[in-house]
Amino acid sequence: MAEHITAFDISEKSVSVTTGTLLTEAAHEAGIDIAQPCGGQGRCGRCAVQVTDGSVRSRSTLRLSAEDVARGYVLACQAVVEGDVNIHVPPQEKLERRLTTDRTVAEVAVPAGYNPAVDQTVRRVTLTLTPPSMDDQTDDWSRLQTAICQKTGIGELQVSLPLLRKIGPVLREEEWRVTAVLDVSQPPGGSETSGRLVDVLPGHIPADAPLWGTAVDIGTTTVSVWLVNLLTGQVVQQAAEYNRQIRRGEDVISRIIYASKNGGGEEMRGLVLETINGLLERVVKRATRDSRLETENVQSPISNLQSPTSIIKATITGNSVMMHLLLGIPAASIRLSPFVTAVNHIPLLTAKEAGLAIHPEAPVDCLPGIASYVGADISAGVLSSGMDDTEKVSLFMDIGTNGETVLGSQDWLVTCACSAGPAFEGAGVQHGMRATRGAIEEVWINSSTYEPTYRVIGDTRPKGFCGSGLISLLAEMFLTGIVDKGGNFNTSLPTNRIRQGAHGWEYVVVWSKDSNNGSRPDDIAITHVDIDNLLRAKAAIYAGFMVLAKSVGLPLEAVEQVLIGGAFGKYINVEKAVEIGLLPDTPWENFHFLGNTSVLGAYYALLDQKQRARIADIASRMTYIELSADNSFFEAFTSALFLPHTDMTLFPSVAKEMMKDES
Amino acid sequence: MAEHITAFDISEKSVSVTTGTLLTEAAHEAGIDIAQPCGGQGRCGRCAVQVTDGSVRSRSTLRLSAEDVARGYVLACQAVVEGDVNIHVPPQEKLERRLTTDRTVAEVAVPAGYNPAVDQTVRRVTLTLTPPSMDDQTDDWSRLQTAICQKTGIGELQVSLPLLRKIGPVLREEEWRVTAVLDVSQPPGGSETSGRLVDVLPGHIPADAPLWGTAVDIGTTTVSVWLVNLLTGQVVQQAAEYNRQIRRGEDVISRIIYASKNGGGEEMRGLVLETINGLLERVVKRATRDSRLETENVQSPISNLQSPTSIIKATITGNSVMMHLLLGIPAASIRLSPFVTAVNHIPLLTAKEAGLAIHPEAPVDCLPGIASYVGADISAGVLSSGMDDTEKVSLFMDIGTNGETVLGSQDWLVTCACSAGPAFEGAGVQHGMRATRGAIEEVWINSSTYEPTYRVIGDTRPKGFCGSGLISLLAEMFLTGIVDKGGNFNTSLPTNRIRQGAHGWEYVVVWSKDSNNGSRPDDIAITHVDIDNLLRAKAAIYAGFMVLAKSVGLPLEAVEQVLIGGAFGKYINVEKAVEIGLLPDTPWENFHFLGNTSVLGAYYALLDQKQRARIADIASRMTYIELSADNSFFEAFTSALFLPHTDMTLFPSVAKEMMKDES
Repeated sequence: MAEHITAFDISEKSVSVTTGTLLTEAAHEAGIDIAQPCGGQGRCGRCAVQVTDGSVRSRSTLRLSAEDVARGYVLACQAVVEGDVNIHVPPQEKLERRLTTDRTVAEVAVPAGYNPAVDQTVRRVTLTLTPPSMDDQTDDWSRLQTAICQKTGIGELQVSLPLLRKIGPVLREEEWRVTAVLDVSQPPGGSETSGRLVDVLPGHIPADAPLWGTAVDIGTTTVSVWLVNLLTGQVVQQAAEYNRQIRRGEDVISRIIYASKNGGGEEMRGLVLETINGLLERVVKRATRDSRLETENVQSPISNLQSPTSIIKATITGNSVMMHLLLGIPAASIRLSPFVTAVNHIPLLTAKEAGLAIHPEAPVDCLPGIASYVGADISAGVLSSGMDDTEKVSLFMDIGTNGETVLGSQDWLVTCACSAGPAFEGAGVQHGMRATRGAIEEVWINSSTYEPTYRVIGDTRPKGFCGSGLISLLAEMFLTGIVDKGGNFNTSLPTNRIRQGAHGWEYVVVWSKDSNNGSRPDDIAITHVDIDNLLRAKAAIYAGFMVLAKSVGLPLEAVEQVLIGGAFGKYINVEKAVEIGLLPDTPWENFHFLGNTSVLGAYYALLDQKQRARIADIASRMTYIELSADNSFFEAFTSALFLPHTDMTLFPSVAKEMMKDES
Repeated sequence: MAEHITAFDISEKSVSVTTGTLLTEAAHEAGIDIAQPCGGQGRCGRCAVQVTDGSVRSRSTLRLSAEDVARGYVLACQAVVEGDVNIHVPPQEKLERRLTTDRTVAEVAVPAGYNPAVDQTVRRVTLTLTPPSMDDQTDDWSRLQTAICQKTGIGELQVSLPLLRKIGPVLREEEWRVTAVLDVSQPPGGSETSGRLVDVLPGHIPADAPLWGTAVDIGTTTVSVWLVNLLTGQVVQQAAEYNRQIRRGEDVISRIIYASKNGGGEEMRGLVLETINGLLERVVKRATRDSRLETENVQSPISNLQSPTSIIKATITGNSVMMHLLLGIPAASIRLSPFVTAVNHIPLLTAKEAGLAIHPEAPVDCLPGIASYVGADISAGVLSSGMDDTEKVSLFMDIGTNGETVLGSQDWLVTCACSAGPAFEGAGVQHGMRATRGAIEEVWINSSTYEPTYRVIGDTRPKGFCGSGLISLLAEMFLTGIVDKGGNFNTSLPTNRIRQGAHGWEYVVVWSKDSNNGSRPDDIAITHVDIDNLLRAKAAIYAGFMVLAKSVGLPLEAVEQVLIGGAFGKYINVEKAVEIGLLPDTPWENFHFLGNTSVLGAYYALLDQKQRARIADIASRMTYIELSADNSFFEAFTSALFLPHTDMTLFPSVAKEMMKDES
C-alpha cells in the first residue's frame, strides 16, 4: 500500500499514511482532533476541511455548499487520502462553557429530617481495640472485624485485599485507636446486616468532621457534579461542564456508533471519566478555598479535603447510553431493533473499578434505568419530581433528543421515549448550536414589517440559534403568518428576509454583517428543511403524551401538573412552546420547571438509602411503552405535524389568540 | 555525598554509587542478584564476594574464615562502598531442582463418590435464551441472570464489570446459545443460594468437556502445583519448583525481614507469583502434550487448555508467612511478640486480585490458618491426614523450620510450632544444603575404623549434607561413640577424621579431594557448633510433643499413630530419627509418612465444598499453644537436648540397642 505525506496547516508535523486513510484518522495521527459531532457519519458537516494541495477521494459532500466544494472543502470523516496532500483545518467550533450552568449554585435544601446515622449507608466508627498479647493472639483482621460488628450490629463485613494490606500498620500507628469507614449498602444476596469496609485510618476522627460524597449526573451534553457533606447533607459545591464525548458525537446515536468502532468504546469511557474527574478536582479545589469549611484539628485525609480521594461515596445517574459508555459496556444493542440495553440495574461498584478518581474503595452506585431510551436520569428525575408520591396525575418530561416522558401518580407510572432527535439541542438545524455564548435564545417578529429582534446569550454578536431560540422563532413565524399551519412559507409577504436559499425557502434573522461566524461569514437563517425537522421533533414529543394518556385510558385534560426537567427546560418560554404545540395547552400554573431533576434525584439517593430503594422501585414498576411498536403513535405523530396541531380543540388558548389576531 | 565507581567482574557495566551503599545494592543496580539466604542479616555467609581492588568498610565478617578475610572476602550484605572498587563475584550456589519432587507424579486417587454437580462450587450451565423482541425488551444481564437462576435454583447472582462488558456480544455470537460458568462458594454474608458469574461463553460446551482447576501449595522451600479436571476430579499433572523467594531468605524470618524493607514486600510477592505462574505454564504445557487429553469438538477456551487462563478455580495453601507474602500483606507482626498475623481467614479473591495468571475472574480460595506459625498448610494437612475424623489419638507433624505439631482426634485438636530453626533444611550448618544434587542424604560409620560411607543425591561427588543426611550422620556418630549423649566429641578415638577445625572440634566425612565444591574446595565436616544447632532443633520438636501431650493430660504412649507430613518426611530414616530423639520411640507400624499433606488437603478442598468447610472447622476448633509463653516448654526442651534424651525410659528401643552394642 502506497504511503503518502499528509500535512495539516495547524500541526507542526506531517504524517505518512497509506492510500485510503480517512482524513480524520490522519489528523488524529498528526495530533489534531477534528470534531465529529455526528460520530463520523457525514451527516453534520462540522468536520469540513480544505484541501489546499494534492488529492483526496470524497465519499460524500452532503452539507457542503457547491461554493465550498469548489473551494476544495471536503468532510474529513468522508474523505480518504490518495496522494500527498496539504490540508487547511478551519477554526473549529469551540465548546464554550454555558455561562449559566456552572458557577450559579442554586441553594439546595437538605431533605427535612435527614439523619445520617440511619439514612446514610456510609458510616464512620471510632474504635479503641484491646491490643494483642501472648494470651490473645487473634489476627488483626478478626480483632478489627469483631470490634466493628459489636459496635454497629453488623453481622458480616467484607474487606478487600488492598485494605487487608494496610490494616496491620494502621492499627499499630496510634496504639490500636482507629476510625473505620463502612458502607452498609445492600449488595445482591447480602444479608440485611452485612457491610463492607471502605477504609481504616489511624486515630479517632471527631464525630462532627465532614464525610464527603458526590452526586454525578452524566448528561449527553452536560455533566454535573455536586460535592456533598454526607454528615449534614449540605451541598457544598456544584460544577458543570460539557461532556468531553461531544467531540465524538453530539447525540447518543452518534456516540454509540463511534464507541462501536475499534477502540472507540475505551476512548468514550476515557473522555467522560476525564470530564467527571476534572469536575471533581474543581469542586474540591473550590471547597478548600472556602474558608468556612476549615475544620481545625482534623488532619485525617478523608475529612480534610486534600483531593478528590477524600470523597468516599458516589451516586451516578445519566441516560442508558451514558451509563454504558461510562462503564465501557458495549451500547450497540441500544441502537438496533429491538433496542435493548446490556444492563439496567448495574451492581454496586468501587471507584477503582469504575475509574473514578475518588477514594479507590468508595462505593459507586449507578442508579437503575428502565429501558434503552429511558434511563437512570428519568428514574432519578421522577423521584425528585415527587410524582411517584402524589395522588395528582402528573406529566413529567425531559425535553431533549430522546424526549423521555412519564405519565403517572403514586399508583401507576407509564413512560416512553419519543426519539425527537437533536433539533432542540441545535443539531440537525443549519444554524443550530448549543446554548453557549453567541446563541440566539429568544426572537420577536414585528407582525407588520416582519423585522426580527432577538436576545443573544453572553451579550455578543449572534452565531446561530439554540433550542429555546428556535421554539421562539417558530412560534413568532407562525403567529405573524410567515409560515402557515403546515410550516410552509408565505412567499408573498413584503420582506426580503423571506427568500430562496441553497436549501429552498428560508427566513433570514441576522444578516452576515451583524453575525459572528469567523472565517465563513453567513446570513443566519431558518430554512424550510429546518422547520420540517423542528415540526417532527415537537410532533414526536407531543405524540408521546398522547400515546401515554391513551395507554391508560385518560384524556390529556386529566393531567393535573406538567413537570419539566432537564437544564433545557429552564430556558423555554412556555407560552411559545404551547404555541408551536410542543407542550400541552394547560393553564400556566400547572407548569413546573424543576431544573436538573436527574442530579437532584442522585443527591437524594446519595444521602438516603430509603430514597435509593424508592428509585429502584420506580424503575421496576414503571411500564415502558415502545413507541416504534405502538400502532397509535404514527397517527398521533402525523396529527401533531402541524402548528400547533391538526386538532385545534387541543389548543384552545392558541386558537383564541389567533382569533384575536385575525379580528 | 561522593560517588564511586563500583565494578563487578560478572557484569558488563559498572555502576556509580554513593559512599555507604551496600555491595548487595550496588550489585542489584549492576543487574546482579547476590543470594541472601538469611535476608541480608550477615548470618549465613552465602553472599561472600572478593574485593579485588579498592576499598569497602565491612560491619561483620562472621562466617568467613581468617584466610578468606585475608584474601579480600567480605559479606556483600554487610560491606559498604567507600571508594572506587572492583568486585569478584564467586559462582553462586545454583538452585538445582530436586530430582525427586518434580516429574515423579504420584498417582492420586480421586475421592470416592466425588460428584461435581453437588460437591464442586464451580459449575458450567448451558442455556438457550429467548431472544429479545419488541414485546420483551428486558436487558441482556437480567435475561441471562433469570435464565441461570431458573436453571440452577440460585437466588442472587453477582457479576463483575468486565463480564458485563462482554455479555452483550457473547449472547449474540451464537444466537442466544451460551455456556455460563458459575461459582457458588459462599462469601461471608452471602445467602445460601447466591453465586457469582465467572464467565459466559458463546455456544454450548459439551457436558463432558473438562473443567480446569488447580491446587497450589506454597512451601517456604518448594512450591507445588497440581492441575485438576474438576469434572472427574482427576489430577492430570503435578509440578514442583523452588520458591524463587529463596534468593531473598531461606527461612520465613529472613523473608519477613526482607519484605519489611522498602519495596521488599512487592518483590517477594512478585517472586512467588513468578514461581506459581511458571509452574502453571509448565503443567498446562505438559497436559496439552499429553495426547490422551485431546478432546475433539471442544473449541472453547476454558475447556481446551490453551494457556493457564483456561483454569477457572484455584485453592491455595501454605504457611502464614507465605500467604501474607503471596498477597502483599505486611508480615512484620508475625515475627514480633506477641506474634500475630494480619489475617488468618482470607476472603475469597479473584485471580486478577491475587495476581494469578489463570482466568482473571476465577475464584482463588486461600485456605485458613490458625496462628503465626501454624498456617493453612497445617489446616489442610490435618484434613488430608484424616486425624480429625478418627477416634485414634494421632500426632501429626511437619518436620521443618517451624516444626508444626498437632495432637488430637475427632473430638479435640491442640497444636504448637516449635521454632526448630532451619537446621534440618540444611541452613545454620556449615556444610548444610538443601536436598539437591550433591547432597549427602544417608551416612554409615564403621564402629571400628570410624570411616564413613555415604549416599549422595544424583550419583555425583558430594557438596554437603541435607537434613536426612544430618540426622543419619548424628545417629551414627552417637551409636559409634564419636559423640556422647551431650553431643561432645570423644577426641581420643584413633582417627584423623576427628580434629580441631576453624570452629572447634569436627568430624570430617569427605576429604576435599573427593568433594565437589567449585573454586573453594574444602573438607566436608560436621562441627561441634553444627551438632549444637541440630540438638536444639530436634529438642524443640520433641519438647513440642511433650507440651501438647501434657496440655491435654495424656502420656506420650497414648499416641496411637504418628503422621509425618511435608516433603522432608519422605526422606527420613525413622530408625535414625528415633535414635537421635527427634521422633518418639513408638513401634514402627505406628509411623505413617504422608508426603505433601498440604497440597493434598488443598486438592480435597478444591474439589469438594464440604471438605473446604471441614478445613475451616479444623482451623477454628484447633487450640493453639504458644510455646514461648508456656512454662513447661523450657524444661521439656532442656531435657531433650541430649542424645536421644535425658530420660532414657522414653526411648526404650534405643536404650536396648545401646546395651546390645556394649555387650
